[in-house]
Amino acid sequence: MEFTGKQIQEARERIAPFVDETPLLRLKALDAYLGCQVYVKAECMQKTGAFKLRGAMNRILTLTDEELSRGIVAASSGNHGRAIAYGARMKGARAVIVMPRTAPEAKKKAIMELGAEVVLCEAPERFEVAERICMERGSTMIPPYDDYDVMAGQGTLGLELMEQCPELSTVIVPASGGGLIGGVSAAVKSVSDHTKVYGAEPSALPRYTESLKAGEPVLVPMKKSLADALVSQRPGLKNFPVVKAYVDGFASVDDPFMLKGMELLLMEGKVLAEPSACIGIGAVLEGRIPVGKEDKVCFVISGGNLGFEQLEILKDAAQFA
Amino acid sequence: MEFTGKQIQEARERIAPFVDETPLLRLKALDAYLGCQVYVKAECMQKTGAFKLRGAMNRILTLTDEELSRGIVAASSGNHGRAIAYGARMKGARAVIVMPRTAPEAKKKAIMELGAEVVLCEAPERFEVAERICMERGSTMIPPYDDYDVMAGQGTLGLELMEQCPELSTVIVPASGGGLIGGVSAAVKSVSDHTKVYGAEPSALPRYTESLKAGEPVLVPMKKSLADALVSQRPGLKNFPVVKAYVDGFASVDDPFMLKGMELLLMEGKVLAEPSACIGIGAVLEGRIPVGKEDKVCFVISGGNLGFEQLEILKDAAQFA
Repeated sequence: MEFTGKQIQEARERIAPFVDETPLLRLKALDAYLGCQVYVKAECMQKTGAFKLRGAMNRILTLTDEELSRGIVAASSGNHGRAIAYGARMKGARAVIVMPRTAPEAKKKAIMELGAEVVLCEAPERFEVAERICMERGSTMIPPYDDYDVMAGQGTLGLELMEQCPELSTVIVPASGGGLIGGVSAAVKSVSDHTKVYGAEPSALPRYTESLKAGEPVLVPMKKSLADALVSQRPGLKNFPVVKAYVDGFASVDDPFMLKGMELLLMEGKVLAEPSACIGIGAVLEGRIPVGKEDKVCFVISGGNLGFEQLEILKDAAQFA
Repeated sequence: MEFTGKQIQEARERIAPFVDETPLLRLKALDAYLGCQVYVKAECMQKTGAFKLRGAMNRILTLTDEELSRGIVAASSGNHGRAIAYGARMKGARAVIVMPRTAPEAKKKAIMELGAEVVLCEAPERFEVAERICMERGSTMIPPYDDYDVMAGQGTLGLELMEQCPELSTVIVPASGGGLIGGVSAAVKSVSDHTKVYGAEPSALPRYTESLKAGEPVLVPMKKSLADALVSQRPGLKNFPVVKAYVDGFASVDDPFMLKGMELLLMEGKVLAEPSACIGIGAVLEGRIPVGKEDKVCFVISGGNLGFEQLEILKDAAQFA
């Protein structure tokens, strides 16, 4: 495997001037609901509102001046696109973000305000369009997860949280393609032999649960879920072996439990996060990850980008409760 | 003045086993909006959801076993009542909380769940009813602010935040009767000669602005404000001289700026607080407290107790923005 803790350590030094060390909050108010000692890694307070800046910045900082001068391209309507736009600006590089025509106006605006060019296309064509732009301009495409530098950048979050509380018994990470959970699990296992790492993914898109069963990355059918940041249908080819080596287990989580987790985090913990970021709390609420009263359990709250009007979805959570 | 930094130091040791040290969060996402380096003292994450536990606990811990056996009484429909109920339970004492009949069902329930007896009455009679119960049962009444032990307990928050960031240039505190701002200003000035302390109060109830002008505590007329935790009409007689000695200035803040502050804290800072707790942010948004780009400014976020349905009031803030 071409991925080690050393790459994560190097990433950490490289990105330190550009990202924040986010707080690890001890939220006692949630203990009774979750049956453990609750810690949250508040990556919703990270610059650009999500962990994505760590990986994007690490990859951008490995580019030569010549590569930077030819620009950076990403296909993403969400947190990855915003992170690339911000990172490119930090390095004075041009960024093109390819977004589906259907992306919310607020997201387009946020990315344009960071100085990036936005190219709109039909959703299924977005990678093709991004690749064509790279070919035409000689730009570098930065993928959202299937890349060692990106995964190493996300892993810095795992080093941070183990320094903030070395006694953590369990770390629970939202999972999609595997950039975050690959990096975090490798980081945690590189510094601790007593900490378990679990992934949580939407039950509508159980790409890791199915792939680990099959022993190789498999494609799951596209289905709707409210976890709008966890939509990949297949594990990343570079992420899968890392996840397979270091992750202790996966939980698939139903939307109502994720929303209930978001409501608990907000109303009892006083922390606002996007729905996808709360899937780990949902996993414990749904009884899918084993935790004990004395366990120190860290929930990685991966992002906090949502509009005020999206808080409306919590009304469903309240009905469900 | 019978109130010194020493009493706050003693309070801190006394209440340490019962209260949490809340985080001081550096919220860079708010810097551009407020024109300074933003720190928040997240007392919304305190046990019982507000700073009130500090003062209530400190007073309860000065009671003899004999006094405890005769019970504790408080007149409060809000955070003070909840803190007294919790503190009494910690010490195995009976608590009676006198509440207006009009208090929301959720607040009554929360206090009853802590094992306290709830006595309902008409709002203007609540202190009279509470005193009668004290006389009948020999119980001790614990006032919400006009008491040296209560004020010393609230002051522990000031010692904490100056330890968490000794370089703070400014601390901004929501003000009502003066328990919190009296304690915090005395604490800050006892350990720092370079930190300014400002109070923020609703412009509908400018009891400190008017009293400082008059040189003595004056009564302001009752007017409506959305700052439902900052309703006292007159400074506390024990609090006023402390505030007069240590506070550098007061801002009176209009409701729309307070709500805008609440919205910013939630949507950009990712921290949920009750409206009253956001009045300091509102004060800076309204231009009522001088801050500079290099200033490290701490906003005391005094509490976070609100129901999901109360988030609706932010729709007004959004319109106003």
